[in-house]
Amino acid sequence: MKKVTIGVIGAGRIGRLHAENLKTFHNVVVKSISDIFVTKAWNWARDIGIEMITDDYQQILDDPEIDAVLICSPTDTHPQILIEAAEAGKHIFCEKPVSFSLTESQQAVRKAVELGRKLQVGFNRRFDHNFQRVRSMVETNEIGVPHLLKITSRDPEPPSDEYIAHSGGIFIDMSIHDFDMARFLIGSEVVEVYVQGAALIDPVFSKYDDVDTAIISLKFASGALGVIDNSRKAIYGYDQRVEILGSKGSVRIDNDYPNTAQLLTSTGVYQDKPKFFFLERYREAYREELRQFISAILDKQAVPVDGFDALQAEVIAHAAKQSLQEGKPISIPAPK
Amino acid sequence: MKKVTIGVIGAGRIGRLHAENLKTFHNVVVKSISDIFVTKAWNWARDIGIEMITDDYQQILDDPEIDAVLICSPTDTHPQILIEAAEAGKHIFCEKPVSFSLTESQQAVRKAVELGRKLQVGFNRRFDHNFQRVRSMVETNEIGVPHLLKITSRDPEPPSDEYIAHSGGIFIDMSIHDFDMARFLIGSEVVEVYVQGAALIDPVFSKYDDVDTAIISLKFASGALGVIDNSRKAIYGYDQRVEILGSKGSVRIDNDYPNTAQLLTSTGVYQDKPKFFFLERYREAYREELRQFISAILDKQAVPVDGFDALQAEVIAHAAKQSLQEGKPISIPAPK
Amino acid sequence: MKKVTIGVIGAGRIGRLHAENLKTFHNVVVKSISDIFVTKAWNWARDIGIEMITDDYQQILDDPEIDAVLICSPTDTHPQILIEAAEAGKHIFCEKPVSFSLTESQQAVRKAVELGRKLQVGFNRRFDHNFQRVRSMVETNEIGVPHLLKITSRDPEPPSDEYIAHSGGIFIDMSIHDFDMARFLIGSEVVEVYVQGAALIDPVFSKYDDVDTAIISLKFASGALGVIDNSRKAIYGYDQRVEILGSKGSVRIDNDYPNTAQLLTSTGVYQDKPKFFFLERYREAYREELRQFISAILDKQAVPVDGFDALQAEVIAHAAKQSLQEGKPISIPAPK
Amino acid sequence: MKKVTIGVIGAGRIGRLHAENLKTFHNVVVKSISDIFVTKAWNWARDIGIEMITDDYQQILDDPEIDAVLICSPTDTHPQILIEAAEAGKHIFCEKPVSFSLTESQQAVRKAVELGRKLQVGFNRRFDHNFQRVRSMVETNEIGVPHLLKITSRDPEPPSDEYIAHSGGIFIDMSIHDFDMARFLIGSEVVEVYVQGAALIDPVFSKYDDVDTAIISLKFASGALGVIDNSRKAIYGYDQRVEILGSKGSVRIDNDYPNTAQLLTSTGVYQDKPKFFFLERYREAYREELRQFISAILDKQAVPVDGFDALQAEVIAHAAKQSLQEGKPISIPAPK
Repeated sequence: MKKVTIGVIGAGRIGRLHAENLKTFHNVVVKSISDIFVTKAWNWARDIGIEMITDDYQQILDDPEIDAVLICSPTDTHPQILIEAAEAGKHIFCEKPVSFSLTESQQAVRKAVELGRKLQVGFNRRFDHNFQRVRSMVETNEIGVPHLLKITSRDPEPPSDEYIAHSGGIFIDMSIHDFDMARFLIGSEVVEVYVQGAALIDPVFSKYDDVDTAIISLKFASGALGVIDNSRKAIYGYDQRVEILGSKGSVRIDNDYPNTAQLLTSTGVYQDKPKFFFLERYREAYREELRQFISAILDKQAVPVDGFDALQAEVIAHAAKQSLQEGKPISIPAPK
Repeated sequence: MKKVTIGVIGAGRIGRLHAENLKTFHNVVVKSISDIFVTKAWNWARDIGIEMITDDYQQILDDPEIDAVLICSPTDTHPQILIEAAEAGKHIFCEKPVSFSLTESQQAVRKAVELGRKLQVGFNRRFDHNFQRVRSMVETNEIGVPHLLKITSRDPEPPSDEYIAHSGGIFIDMSIHDFDMARFLIGSEVVEVYVQGAALIDPVFSKYDDVDTAIISLKFASGALGVIDNSRKAIYGYDQRVEILGSKGSVRIDNDYPNTAQLLTSTGVYQDKPKFFFLERYREAYREELRQFISAILDKQAVPVDGFDALQAEVIAHAAKQSLQEGKPISIPAPK
Repeated sequence: MKKVTIGVIGAGRIGRLHAENLKTFHNVVVKSISDIFVTKAWNWARDIGIEMITDDYQQILDDPEIDAVLICSPTDTHPQILIEAAEAGKHIFCEKPVSFSLTESQQAVRKAVELGRKLQVGFNRRFDHNFQRVRSMVETNEIGVPHLLKITSRDPEPPSDEYIAHSGGIFIDMSIHDFDMARFLIGSEVVEVYVQGAALIDPVFSKYDDVDTAIISLKFASGALGVIDNSRKAIYGYDQRVEILGSKGSVRIDNDYPNTAQLLTSTGVYQDKPKFFFLERYREAYREELRQFISAILDKQAVPVDGFDALQAEVIAHAAKQSLQEGKPISIPAPK
Repeated sequence: MKKVTIGVIGAGRIGRLHAENLKTFHNVVVKSISDIFVTKAWNWARDIGIEMITDDYQQILDDPEIDAVLICSPTDTHPQILIEAAEAGKHIFCEKPVSFSLTESQQAVRKAVELGRKLQVGFNRRFDHNFQRVRSMVETNEIGVPHLLKITSRDPEPPSDEYIAHSGGIFIDMSIHDFDMARFLIGSEVVEVYVQGAALIDPVFSKYDDVDTAIISLKFASGALGVIDNSRKAIYGYDQRVEILGSKGSVRIDNDYPNTAQLLTSTGVYQDKPKFFFLERYREAYREELRQFISAILDKQAVPVDGFDALQAEVIAHAAKQSLQEGKPISIPAPK
């Protein structure tokens, strides 16, 4: 069996998740992991059987046995590592967003493309069993021509004050997943965005010129209309739903729940809350995006979410921010 | 038992529905009905036992036994009949909208108020079992402070070309119910509206400068945000849902279905479509709005949906039209 | 319009319900009502506009204007009134069961048949929108040959001690509806019954040699198998569900709920309880069974639930009682 | 990290599933696998990295490095291998049933107990997220005292003729899972069983004195009643549901579905079928039962499903068979 040898850059929550998933693939060797706080990761890495642990990602890039790297470090380090990895001849899986700056993202993506490296971006939701089913209904024309898209995307709890300060704002940090989902599901580019936003949950968001609640109206090149509603705190848990109304039918998905139990008592009918957060909800999607990344390398095929996808979602995110600031709809130019 | 004697003006679909409902109330006498096409209504009216059938609504207004009238004639006749009925000393139930012109609506409503007549407007959806439950959750603070409102309101099929031509446009004809619902559920006035609209279903809408698909973003005085999605043709049937995300909880309602049967076969799980259209879905709501109108008269209480409610929904509808035409958000001044 | 003139015998809860429903039919005159406690019914009957109120049902039978009677008096009075009404030339709607004794029921039914009166028995559940849909799926072969039937039938609270004493036991009082439903849905006669029963809810049931919880296994002449689970107290409310597994598909229905609202909070997802009890759940079914009874009279057609149906359900009920007493399965002979 | 070294006996479908699951555990070494058709398993075993592959399970039992074995060979080989494994000092995970003969099962279980080996039996469904939630509601008294248990357990398609011939019959092969589930959920022993069964799906079952459809009534020592409905072919897929009615509440679980998508078209509302069969439905449960088996070994704790559980389920299965043959309820003696 042919195997892919991987190095993981960044051993935070998402880096560890990816590494543990890769460890269960029979066609992958997770050889090394790097983190600037290397001591924190030591026990974990040894327990799951990773050979090389370092605080310097250059060691990973310099290792000729490494076929591909996962970039799971903080966003502001992405562009440089991505460029260096591409130059070092590695295939690249990069967490979203590529950067906080459209220009930097473009440079990094361009480099990977020029050098012919596979570059996949971490829009994990595309691999979710529910969203996949919706996309398949669009592709197979089961719902006809899409007219209306609705995306609900809400977190169960807001991040820390510090996280908010460095998040790049709700659109680049959180809604970016929904912008990618919008493009993915409808199969058409967004040409206009209008945002209503407010800090209703916590005034801390205002401190950073950010909002915690937003309604984002979209127009697609195809003529379809769309709307995303975001909240940083849905008290009942993570909420990830979509609905598409088409000319021949409509599809909608509900959340995932931890079980199907219904408890009926004298006061009503109860069910457990939806799966708590992205780690629970997208557990399988995280595995699947890596499985496809590995397959793309082994089979010399295109990756399922590429650099262009990364850039388009970032373009919409920046336009959304502008719309909120200027209080008017913003047109998005067609991609060149 | 004290009884209320009613005259119904207009024996079209909605006038007949109201008359038949009133006939089953033990505390109501449906004495007379008028319609300019009186011969069409003759057999129907006699069969259900209505005494007086006329083509001249003045006969109803002149009848001293009549306590209240239902105005179910075409919209462009509403303001004049409403004013005359108020002057004739009748209580009034008027179908929505009061008129196509904000000025005319204001004049008619003002007249009824000045003369102390009860004036209820036909926003029947407020009396729906589902929407009532949502409202009660807001009122009792079960969901805390509302942050986000979502209303889905879609018809199963577009009206005729002729109807569209005289409908006043989607916002005054159809979305007006949703504007009322938004105010009713959130309990706060709308202060901004932004509309994205398109004719995706049938080009005939463009002919009348109208749209068949719309996403309407709202801001409320309370700070809450909202969105309405409208379609003139949801192929699976009438779709009437709402969702409110609040600080303590979220409530959402699904459509009503004709039964709870699930059919499971080798190709999947099937259920029947939602109740077809407003007559089926709001059958009980239509009864209930009249029941409360009659109670308001007998008990000398306020009606549940008054002239002010009628005007506010019309204000939003006209602003929505303006937003679509001008391509920008429109502010709505606070009511005086 | 041709009209049917009705007399109602028995002005208890169910008699009043029927009378009020009939009052809303345009093709029915509810002329008279009788009750041995006539004073209790006086105000109610006058308010809804019933002309003649008496404590002697003979007055109804003697009235030549009366076309049909509804027998809503206590069960032990049914057979005699039914026979007298048949002899008086009236069509008959009789509440279930016809009597506590199979012999008496047979005599009464035979009399009505011999004299050519229409006799409909009050198995209202057959007219429920959900059960109707299930039956239609069987009839149209959507689920193929039925293999397994499951009926859940639970009351929200046990009746009073006094009621239990005179109820005839759970099988003749409560399960009889389910025995009729079993025959109705499968379209085949029951040939064997085996019962497991216990008094788990209240020891008072044991006092009357009765049970409050039962699992009733059935075999049908067609070869299909079935099971009914009964409880006198489902704390969450009335529970009326069925499921049929067939060779081509399976159908199942859930309860009816008062609304479709879902409340999501930090502790879970909540819905209101099912509709409380039979008056709420079967409100429309009660109307529909009378509508069809009236139509059968006006159109000279067969009634939808006849005396044979009444007797077959009673046969199963008595066999169920015997099975519980003897602790073994009881065979039911084919109807002659 | 302490690790458990495992040998798997039997490399059929279930043996491979277990082996692959164990390979993803960081605290397990899957050292060897045996199968009498060893050549068939060769490529698979090498690909997932199993060191030793043999056609003689004695090699596994003789290996002093092996801590525990999984017995996944055909049922008729279970008792001997189990006894030999116990004598060889291995902990044992044995697929259900332990044997087709109660006597042999008792001997094998007794041997493991006497020698102090951990013995876990493969009732994987206990580890399902849904059934676990039901059990927790019983344990925490959320539903009060259980009165009624209903288990639906249906396969999507019947096994092959050859499989049926050697299956031991539906009760020992299929219903045994439900008998275990009944004991597990109610927490009380079964004291009576009555079976109605028929070959409705395929006459081949009759050839082997077997049935394909059954309704199994149960009485528990606690006084609770229960019913299981089994079918060898639910055309819509695997169906695994339970419901418990208790004095304080009722709990019910629905099937698991591959996604939450609802497709609404002009002909109705459609969802995908439930997860196809046990491999899909119980994927996580299979992992979890092994995880707990490994933990029991490492932590020197009791296993979650032991030999006694295995024997009790087999006792009920044999009584069920007798009930069907004799056409009467069968009492089950209390365990000694």
